[in-house]
Amino acid sequence: MIAAIGVDLGATNVRLVLVDQNGAVMDSGRFPVPERGRAEPVLEDLAPAIEAMRERAEGNAYQVGALGVGVAGLTDVKEGIVLDAINLGWKEVPFQSLLEERLKLPVLLENDANATAFAEAWVGAGRGCRSLISLTLGTGVGGGLIFDGELWRGASGLAGEIGHMVVEPDGEPCHCGGRGCLEAYISASAVVRDAKKAILDGKVGEPLSSFMGNLEGLTAKDVSDAASKGDPLAKRILAKAGRYLGVACTSLIHIFNPEMIVVGGGMAQAGELILGPARVEVKERAFGPLAESTRIALSPLGELAGAIGVAGLALRRYVPSR
Amino acid sequence: MIAAIGVDLGATNVRLVLVDQNGAVMDSGRFPVPERGRAEPVLEDLAPAIEAMRERAEGNAYQVGALGVGVAGLTDVKEGIVLDAINLGWKEVPFQSLLEERLKLPVLLENDANATAFAEAWVGAGRGCRSLISLTLGTGVGGGLIFDGELWRGASGLAGEIGHMVVEPDGEPCHCGGRGCLEAYISASAVVRDAKKAILDGKVGEPLSSFMGNLEGLTAKDVSDAASKGDPLAKRILAKAGRYLGVACTSLIHIFNPEMIVVGGGMAQAGELILGPARVEVKERAFGPLAESTRIALSPLGELAGAIGVAGLALRRYVPSR
Repeated sequence: MIAAIGVDLGATNVRLVLVDQNGAVMDSGRFPVPERGRAEPVLEDLAPAIEAMRERAEGNAYQVGALGVGVAGLTDVKEGIVLDAINLGWKEVPFQSLLEERLKLPVLLENDANATAFAEAWVGAGRGCRSLISLTLGTGVGGGLIFDGELWRGASGLAGEIGHMVVEPDGEPCHCGGRGCLEAYISASAVVRDAKKAILDGKVGEPLSSFMGNLEGLTAKDVSDAASKGDPLAKRILAKAGRYLGVACTSLIHIFNPEMIVVGGGMAQAGELILGPARVEVKERAFGPLAESTRIALSPLGELAGAIGVAGLALRRYVPSR
Repeated sequence: MIAAIGVDLGATNVRLVLVDQNGAVMDSGRFPVPERGRAEPVLEDLAPAIEAMRERAEGNAYQVGALGVGVAGLTDVKEGIVLDAINLGWKEVPFQSLLEERLKLPVLLENDANATAFAEAWVGAGRGCRSLISLTLGTGVGGGLIFDGELWRGASGLAGEIGHMVVEPDGEPCHCGGRGCLEAYISASAVVRDAKKAILDGKVGEPLSSFMGNLEGLTAKDVSDAASKGDPLAKRILAKAGRYLGVACTSLIHIFNPEMIVVGGGMAQAGELILGPARVEVKERAFGPLAESTRIALSPLGELAGAIGVAGLALRRYVPSR
């Protein structure tokens, strides 16, 4: 049986999965990114991890036919080059050929948000969808677009910066230097910013007030946990994020009329605390037939979405389907 | 030589063009929509106008191979049915078969904003572009999307409602019932609304103040003319519209990374009075490489864009290319 290995090269962790041709995950693993700025140390850790996964696969009668690698950053898919990955500190790294020479496997390189969108359409919330938009809510906000069953990468490979849609022209400053971007409202960083402000304003009860002396330790998960326990302010903070998610979804629905919008990433663990207010906003704003025909769903794939997707893309490119 | 006739069925006027296979306009005409609510009176006026254009074409050695009809409204392209055209007052009109029976010509029906986007990519500002977004600024705002050389109609044929992107969540009420839609800022109606308000507030000088007793007669063209003559308030009103156009373009560029955004329709006659501020906004907000790689241009096709585009689509479907 044929399988592929997918690698998601994140800012902090490297994740690996072995998936079969149906997208089922047969094996997985992860290790921390050893060093920022250089590709060689990553390659030194990654190559043996892939070899080990490949051996385990072969022990289970799987033949690894391809390797996919998803990278958070600008990638030249055709040439297999990581053009600019800020979080990794990589520029112009020909990672595809480095891996191919080392591993003697056909390798496909792809932007991680595109890989995630593909995963959602392949085996995720949008299984079988021909058009889909995926949003990954982490420290930042990633986006990927599927039209007519194919990834839309943009005229110069830069599409999917959905986190930098403008949702409030005179709004919060964004890391990108802009103002009022979606990312400045629905990312984990945005939620933490709002919670810190509320804590400093003395507006919160337990458990968030316990972070008063330890603001640096506060994470979006803490806010989400507090909201799950019923903390009204934490709930309000997430509802605000959800509202802006809904504003963005309304625009995306009106522009594209996609079958589905899939929301994943760490912040998506807040689930309906964010998605509920988003759906209310869409219902109030979007044209009836459009709002009704577009599902807004949580990703079922969790943190493996990118790795699964890029394995699928590698299978599609290198392994003839049965 | 082969040609096609394109018809743009608007709320007020019906426009006809004869175009050859290169998209050159060989003949054109127009007449007012005779009646709202029923298709028969339109057909009674349209059929002889088409026959006459066809005869003139044949007199010039052109053979009319197909007819395209663009309609402002929801259309089922496959079945050739106008599902819902609010401005015409049509619902479920099988206009394609009505025309085919009457004229013995193969007919293609399409939404007018889609036809316009196709025209821009075919022979307009985006000639040869593989990805393009067109915005038509009239009483409302129409939109069309071209990806990879093809129209993107959406999962249920409803894509392109770019006028209902949300650009100011708590902003101006929109005709659609929503709030802060792009249309509520950059349409002719929005510009007239702002100008009327300024006149009532007594904030304007000549020539706008002359409309004080005749607010109903004020059009977006009057505002645009006043701005062209240097009226500071009229310029500010158009600059505000341009600013929101720029906010929307920033989002569209970040999401899709298209080669080009083409702006047409009546309001586009204000030209750089709107496009200038829009470009400033994009330059300030959008990622450098994205802002640089996307041209924002005025449509050169004017009011014939829709008719030309739908003639082109009809040629593409029914007439084998040389």
